[in-house]
Amino acid sequence: MIRAAELIQRKRDGEELQDDELAELILGYARGEVPDYQMAAFCMAVFFRGLSPRETYVLTDAMIRSGETIDLGSALGRKVVDKHSTGGVGDKTSLAVAPIVAACGVPLGKMSGRGLGHTGGTLDKLESIPGYRTELTLDEFVAQVREVGTAIIGQTGDLVPADKLLYGLRDVTGTVDQLSLIAASIMSKKLAGGAQAIVLDVKVGNGAFMRTLDDARRLAETMIDLGRQAGREVVCLLTDMDQPLGAAVGNAVEVREALATVRGHGPADFTELVLDACARLLALSDLGIDEAEGRRRAETAVADGSAESTWRRWIEAQGGTADESALPEAPVVRDVAAPAAGYVRELVAIRVGNAAVHLGAGRRTKEDAVDHAVGIVCRAKRGAQVEQGEVLAEVHARSDDAAAEAARDVLAAYELAPEPPEPRPVLLEVVD
Amino acid sequence: MIRAAELIQRKRDGEELQDDELAELILGYARGEVPDYQMAAFCMAVFFRGLSPRETYVLTDAMIRSGETIDLGSALGRKVVDKHSTGGVGDKTSLAVAPIVAACGVPLGKMSGRGLGHTGGTLDKLESIPGYRTELTLDEFVAQVREVGTAIIGQTGDLVPADKLLYGLRDVTGTVDQLSLIAASIMSKKLAGGAQAIVLDVKVGNGAFMRTLDDARRLAETMIDLGRQAGREVVCLLTDMDQPLGAAVGNAVEVREALATVRGHGPADFTELVLDACARLLALSDLGIDEAEGRRRAETAVADGSAESTWRRWIEAQGGTADESALPEAPVVRDVAAPAAGYVRELVAIRVGNAAVHLGAGRRTKEDAVDHAVGIVCRAKRGAQVEQGEVLAEVHARSDDAAAEAARDVLAAYELAPEPPEPRPVLLEVVD
Repeated sequence: MIRAAELIQRKRDGEELQDDELAELILGYARGEVPDYQMAAFCMAVFFRGLSPRETYVLTDAMIRSGETIDLGSALGRKVVDKHSTGGVGDKTSLAVAPIVAACGVPLGKMSGRGLGHTGGTLDKLESIPGYRTELTLDEFVAQVREVGTAIIGQTGDLVPADKLLYGLRDVTGTVDQLSLIAASIMSKKLAGGAQAIVLDVKVGNGAFMRTLDDARRLAETMIDLGRQAGREVVCLLTDMDQPLGAAVGNAVEVREALATVRGHGPADFTELVLDACARLLALSDLGIDEAEGRRRAETAVADGSAESTWRRWIEAQGGTADESALPEAPVVRDVAAPAAGYVRELVAIRVGNAAVHLGAGRRTKEDAVDHAVGIVCRAKRGAQVEQGEVLAEVHARSDDAAAEAARDVLAAYELAPEPPEPRPVLLEVVD
Repeated sequence: MIRAAELIQRKRDGEELQDDELAELILGYARGEVPDYQMAAFCMAVFFRGLSPRETYVLTDAMIRSGETIDLGSALGRKVVDKHSTGGVGDKTSLAVAPIVAACGVPLGKMSGRGLGHTGGTLDKLESIPGYRTELTLDEFVAQVREVGTAIIGQTGDLVPADKLLYGLRDVTGTVDQLSLIAASIMSKKLAGGAQAIVLDVKVGNGAFMRTLDDARRLAETMIDLGRQAGREVVCLLTDMDQPLGAAVGNAVEVREALATVRGHGPADFTELVLDACARLLALSDLGIDEAEGRRRAETAVADGSAESTWRRWIEAQGGTADESALPEAPVVRDVAAPAAGYVRELVAIRVGNAAVHLGAGRRTKEDAVDHAVGIVCRAKRGAQVEQGEVLAEVHARSDDAAAEAARDVLAAYELAPEPPEPRPVLLEVVD
């Protein structure tokens, strides 16, 4: 019998739990023997008391053991790399990284999630492509990665069921933003997915879970530690999420921007992050090259069109129409004009993200449907000099009213100033 | 729609909730609209962040509004007084106070609870009397109080259903020992029960929820505050629970001791507390007398046999056999002898309480049945001088094995010393 009430109380009082106690609590929860209300109280106690590094590892390991694991590396006979982002506004990095890395000869099969709140989900974005199937069987997934080099699907099979339960519970009990719980949730899925080397993109800023560089560093170190204990290589990029990544925020608009980037015409900050992530993934792969060479090969794949043709084969392999013109377009497109001349000092990511959710591009509750056509395209980013009346952003909306409201919200996200701000790179720091 | 997740998060972050928000959360929980897991997370957030005096009042008021209330005063055409104890080891105070106060002409109708853990419940004790009915209808209850002067029953009707749910949840989620939640739980029941004046006995020590006098004072002040806001008079006695109250710990053994006390032959500490509580209840009643006169009348009711005859009429009115010889007796009675001469420096209440539970006198889980015959009678209390081999306590057990084990536990509860300890009264402090 699991003495859940006693374990809750001991964690509440700041005790470190024994390995087998904590593991049994988590596995018991996954088996339905520990009820939601006890796990909710436990998570809140963890929110206040934290978990030790050892407890965080035991939690992660128990979550992995709650379900199946996948050994993609053995199935492909290759060293497998993966990337993951903690989520932000306009984060379509995986959509561009996957075909570029695959075009360089390194397989990248990814399981992604849906968005909730102001951060979009990769699956939602891909579903704006007509016909794209996010649900493949495990065999189909492996076969596609082998033949095309890449596949991005929803979580398949019975992978980390404890995380699915726990995440749903944390979402409605005010226990989402706890470092150890976030780290365990991310890493349990990455480790169960079988990647031997992982590039983690930890977003920092008002549009991310981690608001400060210090918090982001602690999360990065926790996840690297979890990866090492499981014998995997992990590199963490701490990247800026004070402003949206790239220009597009939404679903179809982000797919368009990812494709433009794969073709070499993406926004500067997003292109930089994509190429950097590709370089690190290639350096961690079995190609036996360093980051500089990885960067060169990624740039070449973009320049010579091989990345774009991999994109096409990937989308079509999953049933989608690779042609850009097939993407849905919103009936109303409205410009947001600069009220005065000056420099963009801030472009507050969370406000742009919330405006996009309000337009229908994201979900407020899990039951909400997503409008794939709507979104926001930020033409002017931080540091840009604009004239009065110049277009700061475009709003893609379902109706005139929705467009007018979003335009007000987006304008409020812009802070203009007479002097340019200090430059801030997209890549803030690397932890490895 | 109740935005429970948001309220949990705001409480978690130390915010004070608005009256209507908190009330809706509690009433929504009582209606089944807020699930257990959200209330569990909320209680744990309250454990760490506390509730403001205002929030504590709103919580108490919402709990009362979750069900019916009783106006015993109007039904009787009298000012109604009540007493309540926060629970301890050997606490049979209500059993003696009720017939004494009633014999003095003041009606006292009480709804009591069952015991859980090392503190016994008044209902469990009464059920050791053959035939005693703890379930009366509200009409029967009122009629008996009118005719006999007293009745003690289980909680009737739909009184404070939110407390019943919340208490059950707190018990299994490590959120029992939080001052505001304890105060709201006790006071919501007392206020819904309709008493205009209440004497609260707040136990302090290792055998009670409140371990320190400071904690007990804070609880007392919180409850007095809640009573005042509801327009009731409240007096709090802070009383010692470092050692058991009186000599008997169990069910039938405690009923015997209560009856002996009503007859004037009770243990000194218990008799003192009973008479003090009676004096304060009589002073709060509509008799228009002060405490000194209340004390005198209570002593007279004991001395002239009117308290005992009220006891008899009360027990018989509820279907019980008032004759002491009808109480169950344990098949094995074993003495615990002093291993050396000296003074009893400590008699650790929690150890005696746990030994009694182990014998079967109490419950570990709500589903446990209670053995009414078993228990412990402490012949030597703190400060007593004993010779080597003198009887410290008697164990009343179901079997020789159980008796031997309990004897060991009880002996471990005694601390003997060559010098007598500082005297400590049973009544530590009065807060009003």
